[in-house]
Amino acid sequence: MSEDGFAIRRLTLVGVGLIGGSLSLALKRAGVVEEVIGHARNEAGLRRGVERGILDGYATDPGEAVQGSDLVVIATPLGAIRPVFAAIAPHLSDQAVITDVGSAKAAVVADARAELGEHFPRFVAGHPIAGTENSGVEAGFAELFDNRKIILTPDDETDAAAIERVRRMWQATGAEVETMSVEHHDRVLAATSHLPHMLAFALVSHLSKMSDQDEIFAYAAGGFRDFTRIASSDPVMWRDVCLANADALLELIDGFQLELQQVAEAIRARDADALFEHFQSAKDTRDQLKHL
Amino acid sequence: MSEDGFAIRRLTLVGVGLIGGSLSLALKRAGVVEEVIGHARNEAGLRRGVERGILDGYATDPGEAVQGSDLVVIATPLGAIRPVFAAIAPHLSDQAVITDVGSAKAAVVADARAELGEHFPRFVAGHPIAGTENSGVEAGFAELFDNRKIILTPDDETDAAAIERVRRMWQATGAEVETMSVEHHDRVLAATSHLPHMLAFALVSHLSKMSDQDEIFAYAAGGFRDFTRIASSDPVMWRDVCLANADALLELIDGFQLELQQVAEAIRARDADALFEHFQSAKDTRDQLKHL
Repeated sequence: MSEDGFAIRRLTLVGVGLIGGSLSLALKRAGVVEEVIGHARNEAGLRRGVERGILDGYATDPGEAVQGSDLVVIATPLGAIRPVFAAIAPHLSDQAVITDVGSAKAAVVADARAELGEHFPRFVAGHPIAGTENSGVEAGFAELFDNRKIILTPDDETDAAAIERVRRMWQATGAEVETMSVEHHDRVLAATSHLPHMLAFALVSHLSKMSDQDEIFAYAAGGFRDFTRIASSDPVMWRDVCLANADALLELIDGFQLELQQVAEAIRARDADALFEHFQSAKDTRDQLKHL
Repeated sequence: MSEDGFAIRRLTLVGVGLIGGSLSLALKRAGVVEEVIGHARNEAGLRRGVERGILDGYATDPGEAVQGSDLVVIATPLGAIRPVFAAIAPHLSDQAVITDVGSAKAAVVADARAELGEHFPRFVAGHPIAGTENSGVEAGFAELFDNRKIILTPDDETDAAAIERVRRMWQATGAEVETMSVEHHDRVLAATSHLPHMLAFALVSHLSKMSDQDEIFAYAAGGFRDFTRIASSDPVMWRDVCLANADALLELIDGFQLELQQVAEAIRARDADALFEHFQSAKDTRDQLKHL
């Protein structure tokens, strides 16, 4: 129990990867959770979760996993969330608060509304702006959420007490919690996370098709390293993000392609002034973000 | 003098920014240079170079700066190199070895051939694969080249003794020196450095034009930070790179646009398999570069 009386008696984690594993470790570090039960499709991963002290137990059946839990966190890739909702809904207690960690929210909220029935008001859509390019239960660590932002996207139907519990859970991990609308979240994330990932994956993919790719990668240095590190991220997660946030992402890709096309035109025309202005303006913007 | 007898009596640096300043500091650290003379258009920067121990003296006239020097390093932005060649050619000693640090080589070699006259065989085109997003004489540090790659692109006309002196200069900074053809260098650098910089600048520029840019940048986290850090690089340098390596860069931008277009098509068609395959293949390639 924390100093202000916040406590989770039994937490169920559905999906025990980087985010789920780190959440459990952070809550245990804060001393606010009595018992963490895991469920995932991969039983070997669940066993490693127990060995590493992330889980106190696990269930291979999702309904069994959530029985008697006061807090349920869905931390699977986005594409697996709807079937999870369907599988757990009949087994949730009528006090259980449910949340998720998906990086696109409109699709998840629609799935929750379709599948959770009477439990829907106790579902609080959430998204921790945290992660690394590593995945899997072994990648988890208690400090992942320290000083990171968590975005919750509740709506008018969401129960105020449920929002408060999810907020306090994340605050206990060391994170800062904010709320915004589903639509705004999806647009902001498409811009700052989904589009950059698309560019990094596409760059690595394009270079890997060049005839002298081995030599090309041999001379890749600092900028390239930082720029493409995120292309090591989990392909299942990114496939699902594309499908769940397709409209916002497509709009951003289109806009980005136009911007890059203008740069190409300026290069083709050897337009030194236009190029300088483009680079200077981008540098000015980026320099204002030096704190990043 | 180094253990194997390599020594520079008088080095002239034309351009005293991140690369020039770091080169002087690294050579002084190695004890292989007696005197470093600077020239640049900005006299205040030259004075700061003397104050910081980077320069032993400076000349505001480029011809005067190279008189009596056995090694001349041009470390200006690419667009300034041709006028520098023209200005120094009449004042170079007939033993002087000349090199540069430009990140595109075909244009520099053509400029050298046009302007250096009888000195052209003692010009060794070079490019250190090192840098940071910071620029200016204050950004220099002696360790910048430690274990970094330096690419030299001499041709059949280049004097073997001149190549050897430039090679040993860079080895004295702690770098590893390799040679390749001009064409190959320009293609490899377009792929691993110039294209990634174009993408980072274009991404920042595109997002800065969105109506809710302040909120967008407020939620920018890890991946975005690393991905766009290089958009803080010097706009003059990047304008000049675009002009000097236009053809190789345009070919790569075109190829990248096609790749990104295919991703957009797969998202539009909600083609989960194609998306997964694209991300998995890029991840596999990037994971092979974990040493980066």
